[in-house]
Amino acid sequence: MRHAVILAGGSGTRMWPASRAGKPKQLLPLGKDGSTLLGAAIARGKSVAEDRVLIITAQSQLNGTREVAPTIEMIGEPVGRNTAPAVGLAAATLIRRDADAVLVVLPADQYVAKEGVLSDALAAGLVAVEERDVIATIGITPTRPETGFGYIEMSGKPDGKGVSPVKRFVEKPNRETALSYLQAGTFVWNAGIFLISAKRVMRELHERHPEMAKALEQIAAGTADPAHVYPTIKGISFDHAVMEHAKDIVTLPVDCGWDDVGSWAAMPALKGVDEGGNTLEGVALALGGTGNIVLSDNETLLATCGISDMIVVKHGNAVLVIPKDKAQDVRTVVDALSARGLQRYL
Amino acid sequence: MRHAVILAGGSGTRMWPASRAGKPKQLLPLGKDGSTLLGAAIARGKSVAEDRVLIITAQSQLNGTREVAPTIEMIGEPVGRNTAPAVGLAAATLIRRDADAVLVVLPADQYVAKEGVLSDALAAGLVAVEERDVIATIGITPTRPETGFGYIEMSGKPDGKGVSPVKRFVEKPNRETALSYLQAGTFVWNAGIFLISAKRVMRELHERHPEMAKALEQIAAGTADPAHVYPTIKGISFDHAVMEHAKDIVTLPVDCGWDDVGSWAAMPALKGVDEGGNTLEGVALALGGTGNIVLSDNETLLATCGISDMIVVKHGNAVLVIPKDKAQDVRTVVDALSARGLQRYL
Repeated sequence: MRHAVILAGGSGTRMWPASRAGKPKQLLPLGKDGSTLLGAAIARGKSVAEDRVLIITAQSQLNGTREVAPTIEMIGEPVGRNTAPAVGLAAATLIRRDADAVLVVLPADQYVAKEGVLSDALAAGLVAVEERDVIATIGITPTRPETGFGYIEMSGKPDGKGVSPVKRFVEKPNRETALSYLQAGTFVWNAGIFLISAKRVMRELHERHPEMAKALEQIAAGTADPAHVYPTIKGISFDHAVMEHAKDIVTLPVDCGWDDVGSWAAMPALKGVDEGGNTLEGVALALGGTGNIVLSDNETLLATCGISDMIVVKHGNAVLVIPKDKAQDVRTVVDALSARGLQRYL
Repeated sequence: MRHAVILAGGSGTRMWPASRAGKPKQLLPLGKDGSTLLGAAIARGKSVAEDRVLIITAQSQLNGTREVAPTIEMIGEPVGRNTAPAVGLAAATLIRRDADAVLVVLPADQYVAKEGVLSDALAAGLVAVEERDVIATIGITPTRPETGFGYIEMSGKPDGKGVSPVKRFVEKPNRETALSYLQAGTFVWNAGIFLISAKRVMRELHERHPEMAKALEQIAAGTADPAHVYPTIKGISFDHAVMEHAKDIVTLPVDCGWDDVGSWAAMPALKGVDEGGNTLEGVALALGGTGNIVLSDNETLLATCGISDMIVVKHGNAVLVIPKDKAQDVRTVVDALSARGLQRYL
């Protein structure tokens, strides 16, 4: 049967001050209607896997995650070990109750404007996995020469069902290379969404990372204490561990209004833009400026005047002011607060 | 005897969100040590007038002003009518108890780095007023081609006591004219600080604005209700009403580190600048930028990253973000809030 596996272990530092320790971005009400990215990911999973949804998250985030998704099954990782052990743990767990489990692996912190388009692609990909035991990835049709994502190169045009063989996975390119990818038309963004049978996950891991595979099976069987064993597992991404080496990988290119919500700069796509070109929420004012993202979490007024393309976010006991084109640098603020002993703001 | 008259009726819109209705800038703890500009003005007055200090303020600000200066005599204007009626009301009041009263008129919202220098000039000016019944103004030696102040042109070099005859008062110049004033060396900034006998105030007002003079005398005598009469008085500045027409005016040029604290941009002069070139107060952070003014009134963190020459001020239920070179435009924020019915932030 089909099972949605939602990877929800990210810390989301770049969404500070809204994201805090124990409250990563997928748990924040970032949607126009106050919905969470995790909630959207669960609905996405249910659209192809009915009620079979499993969330893999950090133990420290279990409580916050349960608040958003009280009825969903969860496994808490004692420590983060990247995506290969997380996917492996899900596969080792599910295979025990469903030997023919097929995993729909979905990152928890992504925005999709056209869920129906993605859902159709997932359904088509699942057929390919179930019929041919391929690994099927979702490829996002690129809309700009983005240097922040990995790419997937297709070896040909998609077939009648929208499925194309994969030639190779490539790392985040520089701008020139990204431009050539965009022009070539045979590259898609690697969204980290993929479909794979649980059996194949375990086969690939046993072949390439046997110690990891054994440890995960012991944890799933209850014969090893995850608190002791999980930290000893190698931290590696599923792309590095499996995708870049495996055969029979296909991709389904889709144009579904996907965004990885990597920073506050993604907010206009999620929350919309007013007639002045600004994205405002709460009691917020942007006078004589455009392209601003001004978000207040409560009755505190945020008033900007004469500035453009600036991010101003108030959340709880902190206000962040940073230019939109430096949105990735929020990490440096978080690091500086930590270094100065200002943990009460983290 | 000498009496300090402190004009404390300004609303200080440009210091929003710290200044609010009923809490103008002279009542704010803007000093490095949390001191107020009004407190500094009172000390300035006492340095030449001992304990004879009279504050003229708006009735709506009486409570707030009394909190800062509980022991000082105050008169509350029912409505603002600019400085000529305010000075006239002080003169008409003081002359009834001291026929030879000499007024040291001091705006309440100014910063002076070198109070001793100013105090010496006030003392020298008072001698000139008491001996020759001139009007003596304090002229600030200009340090830049400022277009935001009026100027006083001297008709010659100051005498041995630092006193120079005044040729004329000039309005705020454009930049080219301001540059020529700076180069000429015979122009000083009009700080609105002046020394005049109460008798001369009344004589000048009777000559040029007789209805105003009569109304003020009736209010001072208690034979007219200020709530009814004061609003009927013409609103006009003392400069326009008297200074620009009167004879025997002298000025005492001083270099006393004076600032009119017209906006948040004046804060570095008051509060100092750290080694990174930023002026920070409260829990404030300015990463990767310089020339910023980041002021938090409480435990709310203000974190800026990658911006320079920006004003970020949190006070009470509001946060303002505005470039330093647009600090004068805070008025437009206040106007916008008023127009949108957001009075709770004013």
